[in-house]
Amino acid sequence: MTGYLLLGHEWTNFSTPQLNIVEYKTFPIEHLIEFSARVFRYFEIPQDQAELAAEVLAAADLRGIDSHGVGRLHAYFDMLSLGRINPKPQIRIVRQSLSTATVDGDNGLGLVVGPESNQIAMDKAEECGSGWVSVCNSNHYGIAGFYVLKALERDMIGWSMTNSTKLVQPLWGGERMLGTNPISIAFPGNEEPPVVIDMATSAVSYGKVEIARRKQEDIPAGWAVDSVGCNTTSPEGMIEGGALSPLGSFREMGGHKGYCLASMVDILCCVLSGANWGPFAPPFALRQQIPERSVGKGIGHFFGALQIGAFIDVDEFKRQIDDWVRTMRGTKPQPGSPDVLIPGDPEREFETLRRTEGIPLVMPLVEELRDISKRTGIPFD
Amino acid sequence: MTGYLLLGHEWTNFSTPQLNIVEYKTFPIEHLIEFSARVFRYFEIPQDQAELAAEVLAAADLRGIDSHGVGRLHAYFDMLSLGRINPKPQIRIVRQSLSTATVDGDNGLGLVVGPESNQIAMDKAEECGSGWVSVCNSNHYGIAGFYVLKALERDMIGWSMTNSTKLVQPLWGGERMLGTNPISIAFPGNEEPPVVIDMATSAVSYGKVEIARRKQEDIPAGWAVDSVGCNTTSPEGMIEGGALSPLGSFREMGGHKGYCLASMVDILCCVLSGANWGPFAPPFALRQQIPERSVGKGIGHFFGALQIGAFIDVDEFKRQIDDWVRTMRGTKPQPGSPDVLIPGDPEREFETLRRTEGIPLVMPLVEELRDISKRTGIPFD
Repeated sequence: MTGYLLLGHEWTNFSTPQLNIVEYKTFPIEHLIEFSARVFRYFEIPQDQAELAAEVLAAADLRGIDSHGVGRLHAYFDMLSLGRINPKPQIRIVRQSLSTATVDGDNGLGLVVGPESNQIAMDKAEECGSGWVSVCNSNHYGIAGFYVLKALERDMIGWSMTNSTKLVQPLWGGERMLGTNPISIAFPGNEEPPVVIDMATSAVSYGKVEIARRKQEDIPAGWAVDSVGCNTTSPEGMIEGGALSPLGSFREMGGHKGYCLASMVDILCCVLSGANWGPFAPPFALRQQIPERSVGKGIGHFFGALQIGAFIDVDEFKRQIDDWVRTMRGTKPQPGSPDVLIPGDPEREFETLRRTEGIPLVMPLVEELRDISKRTGIPFD
Repeated sequence: MTGYLLLGHEWTNFSTPQLNIVEYKTFPIEHLIEFSARVFRYFEIPQDQAELAAEVLAAADLRGIDSHGVGRLHAYFDMLSLGRINPKPQIRIVRQSLSTATVDGDNGLGLVVGPESNQIAMDKAEECGSGWVSVCNSNHYGIAGFYVLKALERDMIGWSMTNSTKLVQPLWGGERMLGTNPISIAFPGNEEPPVVIDMATSAVSYGKVEIARRKQEDIPAGWAVDSVGCNTTSPEGMIEGGALSPLGSFREMGGHKGYCLASMVDILCCVLSGANWGPFAPPFALRQQIPERSVGKGIGHFFGALQIGAFIDVDEFKRQIDDWVRTMRGTKPQPGSPDVLIPGDPEREFETLRRTEGIPLVMPLVEELRDISKRTGIPFD
């Protein structure tokens, strides 16, 4: 695994030598799926939805995006325990056309509202070439990449975006105003693996700043600003009231473009659906502050599906993707750099490894899951 | 104008004090439109198409994106003179569904193929909520932002992307493999101006590297690599066989994300339509090298339109956009920075100024236009 860095996503890599000092325990993915599903069932979430939600979490753990997998189960547990998430939502289409829909998630788990809305987009694409669904009144939906992988199974190009709790400065802004607002899109190959893009629109993830703090290291200039709004190389400076910088970081390096992308995601997911945009996105976890204003319902997502066969022969498309992938891999490498990767390579490597070797969970996370086990009576380990 | 920097786009700012040493002549936009249209007419391009093409070029000049306006007229003139662009294309839909189409531009001017294909996307959105058009066998289509402004007039969210001649390295790559592949999208407000995103997916434009060379200045680390593939701060290093870096520049700063975005644009515009993707995009101008392989027809574009009313009441959407715009403008600024801008602000400022004060053209460009005038007999100045 070492020698590979993650393309398109940020994550905590437990396999790197520097982090081998962290104590962890390994679990088969099936074990984590079963446990998560039973925890969701505990709140009387219907069986099929509980299994689906567990599958979405597992996709993150398998693909190495540890911040979005069972690492979040306790937060979902807390929100469900306090009735802040509706375990039995009436998810409904509030407006639609042949190729579009607006969905109200009825404050359900994003892990349930997301897949159902994505399904609507794909079904519409089956009918009329494309399908586009903007979703309000939802909660965090796991990794954006989960959804686009579903579209690949149907020979479609899948799109997925979500807003999230404020964490990122607009270019020249001195405070958190936008989420890390990821964009995901995937294209199927034939003999070659699919091209799978899944990227936050911030320069870096919050998790990387946390790792730097734990290791008592500085962060690079361009990752963040502090609570006054000044550029900072101190992880504490960002964490204690500062903000992450948008992709591109500075004006000179294209920081306005990261801000543009985060804005695009925010508007498609929230203004179009009637969810809370920008700094008004509700918090994911209990300890986070609730915004002083509400401008809509819950958080928002945006899903899209394009039927490839509506544009070109599917076989021809896949043949060209194979060629595209091989051509990009054949790029002359920079001296001293690894070979050029294809978007999705690192996550695929993770999945292959983790399906056989299991999912490494750091001990504080194991303790969190044990806490859920103790409170619910569902056995964990 | 000074004090404003361009959000979402790169351009040569003739108004900045450093560049006032450059000699230029100012022309009313109407004059440039008339001249361009007559030049296109000279090649027997039909009147309405010639006017449309001139309008697309003018949009770039008005909005301050000087690299894409009449600054390119001589290149179009050369290509038309040599029969490398078809002045009377039979633009046709080769495949379609209710909400999608694939268009073959018959090697016409991108300035004509683009608007027609964009129209198809909007008409489909009128019919069934959204419209998506992938275009092959086209040529350079002007600024991506032109197309999304058209969608605003119809209460739609417009999308526009194009590939272009290779100029950008994939992350870790030591050579040009992708174009600067821009993404544009726009959202209408009511009392506030629209949010208009128009951005290349490279860290910076080629024009900025050229300016640095002219001023004999270094370029910042992260803009480019040289012909060996090493990071360089020399503008010559990039220009002479090097490559621009993707948005994000380095792995640590998110350079993989810029590469992902350029890939997304490349595949949607070219693999989906049957155009030449990646390093095989044909050149824009005569002096550029023709790729050794062809993998499709011409270059490609991708247009989309979402009917806002298919998702939410249009008035409510615009009210929320107004609120979004005011909220972002109200962001606490970074110490020492200008206030936070809204995507589209700088281009709008340019347009207001240039509609009254005219378009400043540097003398070498004036000479180019005089050359066209001499060869065609169409009066210029």
